Amino acid sequence: MPGPVFDARFAESFEQLLAWRRDVRHFKADPVDPALLDGLLAQAALAPSVGLSQPWRFVLVQDPALRAGVLEDFERSRAEAEAGIPVEKRGAYGRSKLEGLREAPVHLAAFTDTATHQGHGLGVFSMPECLHYSTVMAVHTLWLAAQLRGLGLGWVSILQPVAIAQRLAVPAGWELTAYLCLGYPAFESPRPELESTGWEQRRAPAGWLLRR
Amino acid sequence: MPGPVFDARFAESFEQLLAWRRDVRHFKADPVDPALLDGLLAQAALAPSVGLSQPWRFVLVQDPALRAGVLEDFERSRAEAEAGIPVEKRGAYGRSKLEGLREAPVHLAAFTDTATHQGHGLGVFSMPECLHYSTVMAVHTLWLAAQLRGLGLGWVSILQPVAIAQRLAVPAGWELTAYLCLGYPAFESPRPELESTGWEQRRAPAGWLLRR
Repeated sequence: MPGPVFDARFAESFEQLLAWRRDVRHFKADPVDPALLDGLLAQAALAPSVGLSQPWRFVLVQDPALRAGVLEDFERSRAEAEAGIPVEKRGAYGRSKLEGLREAPVHLAAFTDTATHQGHGLGVFSMPECLHYSTVMAVHTLWLAAQLRGLGLGWVSILQPVAIAQRLAVPAGWELTAYLCLGYPAFESPRPELESTGWEQRRAPAGWLLRR
Repeated sequence: MPGPVFDARFAESFEQLLAWRRDVRHFKADPVDPALLDGLLAQAALAPSVGLSQPWRFVLVQDPALRAGVLEDFERSRAEAEAGIPVEKRGAYGRSKLEGLREAPVHLAAFTDTATHQGHGLGVFSMPECLHYSTVMAVHTLWLAAQLRGLGLGWVSILQPVAIAQRLAVPAGWELTAYLCLGYPAFESPRPELESTGWEQRRAPAGWLLRR
């Protein structure tokens, strides 16, 4: 069965999609249509998964008290993480906006079900981390699918995974892979925000590719 | 600066791209143009990365002796992993083709530089695994970009990461995230091969989405 052939116009738009995908921390208040969100999650489920285990589990966090708790967790983790930031960067760290937890209309926690029997253990004996990696690819698929619809996604990693799992009372074996903010971005840019603010810049691929 | 707007035709093709992306284990012998591979890696580098750390490091494995060694590692890991497969699935496990290491024209090992200073430690204090997750998103970007060009990618996770790092003599701090086969697929299908062979099937998203 021959697959679809993708033309040059699609290739160009696909590169634009990659180039304009941002880690968004500034959201508009506009709500996200629940049917649109369902469609994005259905696309995310087309992601690759080790052994076809589909271990991704999403939790839509809507309760204002839970959201406020996650924000508290973030603020505590952010303060703790300062220890890992070089001294000369700590001023910039303090001034940086690192999440859009207050503004984003949608909070979505992406867990990995490490206890799933789906996939029958294929491919995870020597690399069990591939279950989390499958969830990461579902998140990345969601990210691109959202961008295509004009939505922005922000990944908040300054959180304690175990604390979030407890707070959201998820089933045993579910481990947090990513905590996501979703909504319409306040602005768009072909440059990462960390580049615009001077935190870091993207570098050319010298040294990324070795030959053996 | 307003970003590009993606039309319905692009959205439809993008869904086709997701739907036809396979984990390929059957490759044609046709070589992959090195310039095309360079272009795919450049697109992979547009992936998100925690703190803009771009921690992905690719190793193009060309030496036949090294490739044969990786295949040996796979075969040993495959035999060891049988212990993690349910008894009733072991016959099917033994019969399954789980990699295309012999046929694929390109072997690409994707490492994560866990010792990088790029990103200045942002976002990895509480979740250091996000460095690997960044590499996973670069791999997934490469996967989609390859599919767009008619190429197929296969992820081999039945390997011991430390053994591969030693075999390929990578710098200290580089940890294996994924070992990839790349080439033109022997056939295309909208169904995962693990589904066609009866190993596992994709399931509807009931139970994937909780509300809190």
